[in-house]
Amino acid sequence: MEWRDLLARRTIRFFRQEMPKEDDLRAMLEAARCASSAANAQVLRYMVIRSPELAEKLFCCTAYAGLVKPRRSPVWGVNAARVYFAVLAPPERGEADAGAALQSMEFAAWDRGLGCCWVGAFDHAAADRLLAPAEGLETRYLMAVGYPAEPAPVRDDIGADGKTAYYLDADDRLHVPKFTVDALTVWK
Amino acid sequence: MEWRDLLARRTIRFFRQEMPKEDDLRAMLEAARCASSAANAQVLRYMVIRSPELAEKLFCCTAYAGLVKPRRSPVWGVNAARVYFAVLAPPERGEADAGAALQSMEFAAWDRGLGCCWVGAFDHAAADRLLAPAEGLETRYLMAVGYPAEPAPVRDDIGADGKTAYYLDADDRLHVPKFTVDALTVWK
Repeated sequence: MEWRDLLARRTIRFFRQEMPKEDDLRAMLEAARCASSAANAQVLRYMVIRSPELAEKLFCCTAYAGLVKPRRSPVWGVNAARVYFAVLAPPERGEADAGAALQSMEFAAWDRGLGCCWVGAFDHAAADRLLAPAEGLETRYLMAVGYPAEPAPVRDDIGADGKTAYYLDADDRLHVPKFTVDALTVWK
Repeated sequence: MEWRDLLARRTIRFFRQEMPKEDDLRAMLEAARCASSAANAQVLRYMVIRSPELAEKLFCCTAYAGLVKPRRSPVWGVNAARVYFAVLAPPERGEADAGAALQSMEFAAWDRGLGCCWVGAFDHAAADRLLAPAEGLETRYLMAVGYPAEPAPVRDDIGADGKTAYYLDADDRLHVPKFTVDALTVWK
């Protein structure tokens, strides 16, 4: 897909129950490993959770879209993602690297027809118990991935005094307000 | 440009002295504002520094590529970038958001024929004095941008026990070792 078309990508929270292809999941990891890394230290590691038992337990540690509960609260076996990435990082390191890697993974997902949801709200201690990352690493972020099963969310452009709260319209379409470039930028 | 071709992007540290087009700088900001943002709060703000006097002072606050000094140490008026972005964030917030935004900006730059260098090593207090961000914001990261004036760096794929230190070869080409997907990933 053309890069410029990927900017229309938005977070997806409801997924079809079909498993994503391994090749597409690997393309997301390829994007992650090519992302920028402070001093090229590459402190992040990745886990892909496809086992239904483990994925269900991990799903139970997560929370979604507080502002549009319960209309965008996925249900296991119905519309929850069946596959999850875990981004593992050393404590207190790699936070910006994780942002860069996850953003790259999102583009790669969209390029392959997959949707995803970067999840920061989860029970970290429970996730670490379930995933048991290697020594010196913790579960920093999760990413749910799969084929979208909701209308494509739309971006609403807002000025500097606009409200950022996302919302569902009467057609069940999610609106995501985003500040315009002019609202965000000072030129010197 | 095709998204998949953008994964060949690498950091550029030497730049031609021609000013980037405003339209291309705006494309980078457009990519930043569309990036993922935790709870869609959009806490980041941006500054574009094009004024030669301010850009030179800001350049003097930065450090580059410790491992390949002085062969990749840019010189003001010779091969240093003439334009800088500052990513502004509230203290102790927005670090992963900044990573996502900067990664998106890098893709947008490459798509437009521009190179860039995400700079985390700079005198933060001096940058804050120079840029005087709005109340409640600090200068979190800088990004140098311009037309590349160095051979395109290449990626070397390494296994789990590989060394991540980047280096210049005899032809003055920068090599950036990157772990393979298999070296970074556990499948469950």
